[in-house]
Amino acid sequence: MNVVYTNIRRADAEVVNALARCGVATVHEAQGRTGLLGPALRPIYAGARIAGAAVTVSLAPADNWMIHVAVEQCQAGDVLVVAPTSYSDAGYFGELLAASLAVRGVRGLVIDAGVRDVRELTGIGFPVWSKAVHAQGTVKETLGSVNVPVVCAGGLVNPGDVVIADDDGVCIVARLEAARVLQASETREAKEATVRERLQRGELGLDIYDMRDKLAKRGLIYRPQSLAE
Amino acid sequence: MNVVYTNIRRADAEVVNALARCGVATVHEAQGRTGLLGPALRPIYAGARIAGAAVTVSLAPADNWMIHVAVEQCQAGDVLVVAPTSYSDAGYFGELLAASLAVRGVRGLVIDAGVRDVRELTGIGFPVWSKAVHAQGTVKETLGSVNVPVVCAGGLVNPGDVVIADDDGVCIVARLEAARVLQASETREAKEATVRERLQRGELGLDIYDMRDKLAKRGLIYRPQSLAE
Amino acid sequence: MNVVYTNIRRADAEVVNALARCGVATVHEAQGRTGLLGPALRPIYAGARIAGAAVTVSLAPADNWMIHVAVEQCQAGDVLVVAPTSYSDAGYFGELLAASLAVRGVRGLVIDAGVRDVRELTGIGFPVWSKAVHAQGTVKETLGSVNVPVVCAGGLVNPGDVVIADDDGVCIVARLEAARVLQASETREAKEATVRERLQRGELGLDIYDMRDKLAKRGLIYRPQSLAE
Amino acid sequence: MNVVYTNIRRADAEVVNALARCGVATVHEAQGRTGLLGPALRPIYAGARIAGAAVTVSLAPADNWMIHVAVEQCQAGDVLVVAPTSYSDAGYFGELLAASLAVRGVRGLVIDAGVRDVRELTGIGFPVWSKAVHAQGTVKETLGSVNVPVVCAGGLVNPGDVVIADDDGVCIVARLEAARVLQASETREAKEATVRERLQRGELGLDIYDMRDKLAKRGLIYRPQSLAE
Amino acid sequence: MNVVYTNIRRADAEVVNALARCGVATVHEAQGRTGLLGPALRPIYAGARIAGAAVTVSLAPADNWMIHVAVEQCQAGDVLVVAPTSYSDAGYFGELLAASLAVRGVRGLVIDAGVRDVRELTGIGFPVWSKAVHAQGTVKETLGSVNVPVVCAGGLVNPGDVVIADDDGVCIVARLEAARVLQASETREAKEATVRERLQRGELGLDIYDMRDKLAKRGLIYRPQSLAE
Amino acid sequence: MNVVYTNIRRADAEVVNALARCGVATVHEAQGRTGLLGPALRPIYAGARIAGAAVTVSLAPADNWMIHVAVEQCQAGDVLVVAPTSYSDAGYFGELLAASLAVRGVRGLVIDAGVRDVRELTGIGFPVWSKAVHAQGTVKETLGSVNVPVVCAGGLVNPGDVVIADDDGVCIVARLEAARVLQASETREAKEATVRERLQRGELGLDIYDMRDKLAKRGLIYRPQSLAE
Repeated sequence: MNVVYTNIRRADAEVVNALARCGVATVHEAQGRTGLLGPALRPIYAGARIAGAAVTVSLAPADNWMIHVAVEQCQAGDVLVVAPTSYSDAGYFGELLAASLAVRGVRGLVIDAGVRDVRELTGIGFPVWSKAVHAQGTVKETLGSVNVPVVCAGGLVNPGDVVIADDDGVCIVARLEAARVLQASETREAKEATVRERLQRGELGLDIYDMRDKLAKRGLIYRPQSLAE
Repeated sequence: MNVVYTNIRRADAEVVNALARCGVATVHEAQGRTGLLGPALRPIYAGARIAGAAVTVSLAPADNWMIHVAVEQCQAGDVLVVAPTSYSDAGYFGELLAASLAVRGVRGLVIDAGVRDVRELTGIGFPVWSKAVHAQGTVKETLGSVNVPVVCAGGLVNPGDVVIADDDGVCIVARLEAARVLQASETREAKEATVRERLQRGELGLDIYDMRDKLAKRGLIYRPQSLAE
Repeated sequence: MNVVYTNIRRADAEVVNALARCGVATVHEAQGRTGLLGPALRPIYAGARIAGAAVTVSLAPADNWMIHVAVEQCQAGDVLVVAPTSYSDAGYFGELLAASLAVRGVRGLVIDAGVRDVRELTGIGFPVWSKAVHAQGTVKETLGSVNVPVVCAGGLVNPGDVVIADDDGVCIVARLEAARVLQASETREAKEATVRERLQRGELGLDIYDMRDKLAKRGLIYRPQSLAE
Repeated sequence: MNVVYTNIRRADAEVVNALARCGVATVHEAQGRTGLLGPALRPIYAGARIAGAAVTVSLAPADNWMIHVAVEQCQAGDVLVVAPTSYSDAGYFGELLAASLAVRGVRGLVIDAGVRDVRELTGIGFPVWSKAVHAQGTVKETLGSVNVPVVCAGGLVNPGDVVIADDDGVCIVARLEAARVLQASETREAKEATVRERLQRGELGLDIYDMRDKLAKRGLIYRPQSLAE
Repeated sequence: MNVVYTNIRRADAEVVNALARCGVATVHEAQGRTGLLGPALRPIYAGARIAGAAVTVSLAPADNWMIHVAVEQCQAGDVLVVAPTSYSDAGYFGELLAASLAVRGVRGLVIDAGVRDVRELTGIGFPVWSKAVHAQGTVKETLGSVNVPVVCAGGLVNPGDVVIADDDGVCIVARLEAARVLQASETREAKEATVRERLQRGELGLDIYDMRDKLAKRGLIYRPQSLAE
Repeated sequence: MNVVYTNIRRADAEVVNALARCGVATVHEAQGRTGLLGPALRPIYAGARIAGAAVTVSLAPADNWMIHVAVEQCQAGDVLVVAPTSYSDAGYFGELLAASLAVRGVRGLVIDAGVRDVRELTGIGFPVWSKAVHAQGTVKETLGSVNVPVVCAGGLVNPGDVVIADDDGVCIVARLEAARVLQASETREAKEATVRERLQRGELGLDIYDMRDKLAKRGLIYRPQSLAE
């Protein structure tokens, strides 16, 4: 059965924006090392860092019809998340769809497939995380669904979840967890700031994290190289 | 039998240059979604967009002898297309060969293998589409052929065909089809300009492409999320 | 048995710096086409070219504990080389470890796995060659070794060896061979300068390298395309 | 938070056994082409066809501690489903764990990672679907969870779901859908039996499925090859 | 434009059958090391060795409609060759299509994509060379072409060409070259029989092929290991 | 410099044969989880389990000349280990070379590349572990070396080392470590026999390995599924 769910509940906008500032690596750690999509997803250009509410699309391989359907479900602050039902690296998305999303205030695209018009997308500053760049066209023949749970690059995404994406990849935070994860992320950032400062002064992680004892107990041996043979 | 075909027929230079302006994605669509080489071919730097007549090279894996032979067959406006007879990611091509091609007016290289001296090639602005960057040297021991049909990254390339390459990948247009494909590409561009304008004003592809009826006939259901469970 | 070898012998600093200027492709050729690590290792940003003495780390997959141990063994001019004992693309290394290495004068990281905080590493100019970018965290539970021989991306690296890394990849020069390889590299550079100049004047490699005879003896045929069918 | 959920609800045993007889391809079709895990999962030997209730394991890469924990949660008729939190092809599972599961009546293992002792597992007839065969050992240091939802080879698996596995791969049926999907599978099988018979008598799918009209309307052209050029 | 070419010219049946007896490796060598498809194509079961005339199918990714169309174009002794226009590992082909082909005397399938019902295909002895086994279903929505030239796993296949397939992979012989290649294959086989006999008596290839001189001239050095350090 | 080292020192034959009986997984564990080659190496047929002294070959990609040279260096009980200097999946080895090795008593081949004549090799029972099956021929043009250290599928192999290979892959034991590793392997086997017996009686690994306390201390929680939501 192919359904478009409308009026989805979205994570709180302020929380979403604050998560963007934290970035993928921090948020992933702060929520207990879950939610990360696979490293095959790479940004088409360096430097973008976004977060938004997920509008999800499940579609047939090499068929982008449901992306056209999904556009209407998007609103300002959303991120489109697209996953075909079997492997495809065709180019489902280009500058016309981007123009249509940009005018609605959509912040970017995460697609477990290919994208094209990279030059134009870079020109207008519409960021895409994809696993391929490929000009191969797609058809518009088979129904899929919008705003259903999808598995994208090995991770589960529910509609309305927070999508955070930057040069390190893409991380998903469950809608109802977003506020809690933001708090944990900010705590983590504060703690890292202190550690960073100490490291920059030349202190060693071995000492800051108190590792020497545990290493010795496990049996780590130090030996001058001259004694190696 | 190893042959170098000389005096190949090339696509018309003006048509070639106009195809470059259209770019890979448009040309691929305009010629009925054929001619695209595989997405493993990536540019060594972003932003180049070229077209030229193909001088093709079929060579032994990890042996670049025939590239040296092919240089002599190249003239201004050509693009060199290189395909080994089995998988190899060695570095067949570097800045010395690029210098040699550049002085003859060759516009770039498409190679279903590896390239090296990326820093220098970027510096002199000689664009390469390859499936690997690898410094691994090659030998000069085994004959191959120049200006024979080759399969490169899964696509067929005949000598004299038009090669279009940009950030989206590489597309081949048969020499005798070039004028017709250019016309179709320009028609497509004009049509896309109209659509783009409407999209940027906020119209939906669903309406512009008249999809709603077809979607309903196929059975697509719209349902508020609150009714999901 | 897990050991940290201390006080390793390092290649001479001046030789190391001169090798950096030669770059990966030249050094690899000059030492007889050996020492290259595989092309899966890519720089996180373009343009860096470094050389340094290898501090090597062998560690468990998805466990970065031994990197923290290795920091203490690093000194100015070193390059850290990290290899897990089975495949992993997790993110073993980020900006905190980079800060710690940078303050000691370490020049970069080569890791046969994943890295994260790419935006921050790019910002502070700490270059990394890795086979993935991935925010996935690692644990600190299992011992490994520091300054033992490791196989990294298919190549052998001994502690104290010279690591050269640039946009073309990563090349290793044995510590005791470094001076000899530098001399061979500089000889090669001088020779290439002459060839480059001749090529830029329009001479052909076929003539410069005296290939025409050998090609003819092997049986290469030249034939105008009009006679092809 | 790391949890082992006990006393999970399982799909009905008779339904599970009947689904095994239908096989992966039929069940996947019958439930609307959903639930399939990716083709990287391959059986270690040909010919096994099983179904069972999923006991799921989420664990750290290269760490099989939680499999030992999961054994206790397994009962006769179960299939163990194991997914690391990032890519790993280490060998998490061998004949000792298989002996332990076999004695409890577990029917097989699906693991998005590597397996070892393939010769022994084949000898005792304990089937495994994995993405690698690799002797690489794993550690027992990091907690994970048992009977939580996991993404395995790109598909979502909930504890208690039906796992069907055969030479074609692995398919998941939601616990509450199992009876309905079985009915649809058996309907499909009956229909296929009729079609098979007609095909074996020499009738064409073109006629059985009434495709000729639709093909003609879409514009398919038939042309003798002699007119091709 | 989508066309089905009918009444294609096929290679001579006796020549085809004799080529099957020679096998892929011999034929590939005998025709000058051309015509081989890529090693991603693997047989679904070991031991099959077939040859036949190619009926080719170019189709959309994840859409098997044109295979149904192609069945009607097949006759006894043919081999079906299927290539999607972009990467797909979906399961385009199963036992119903096999039944339909088998009743017409088709000898097997070569597909640059996925196949399913492997257990049943093995049971009826219908051999398939594919790059994946995957139960994922395909649609029947988009036209393609039958009996046009296709690129399959990196090699060019024209309708009516000879397809030879065995445990070593798949090799294509141009229709008009088949008789000549058969002769060369049989000559090669005879020559190999003599060499095999000499090798089995303990003679060395170094002597049979007269390599010692050439090795010495190139500079190969023999040195007892005791002198290695 | 290209050298053939002759008269290499080999591991003791009785130790080698005893290691074969232990198999790859056991030996790998017994020597501290080192020495394993990567899982890309797969046997061409199931069920072989061999061990032998390594005769190593470093050769140019797609060039098998040095294998012919290496045959003369082989003696009864050896295993040939072949590694090209950059990636290649060409077919370096077939039944003629196997015949030549078999007559000398060589036990098998490990090759980080492709093999052909799989049907014939299976027929005569000459086992091969390779990363591809591919009929693609190779040339005999470029020198390499025999009995030098090579990196094969990510692992280091020295001439004379013990190579153990079975369905789980390939493991290397240093020549001078072989006796010690055999002893450790046999100790491990004895210990595993006891564990196996207890597991087969229904005891749990959790109890046999005393894991419950450690799990509790780390914080693992057990919770009935009914309390999950």
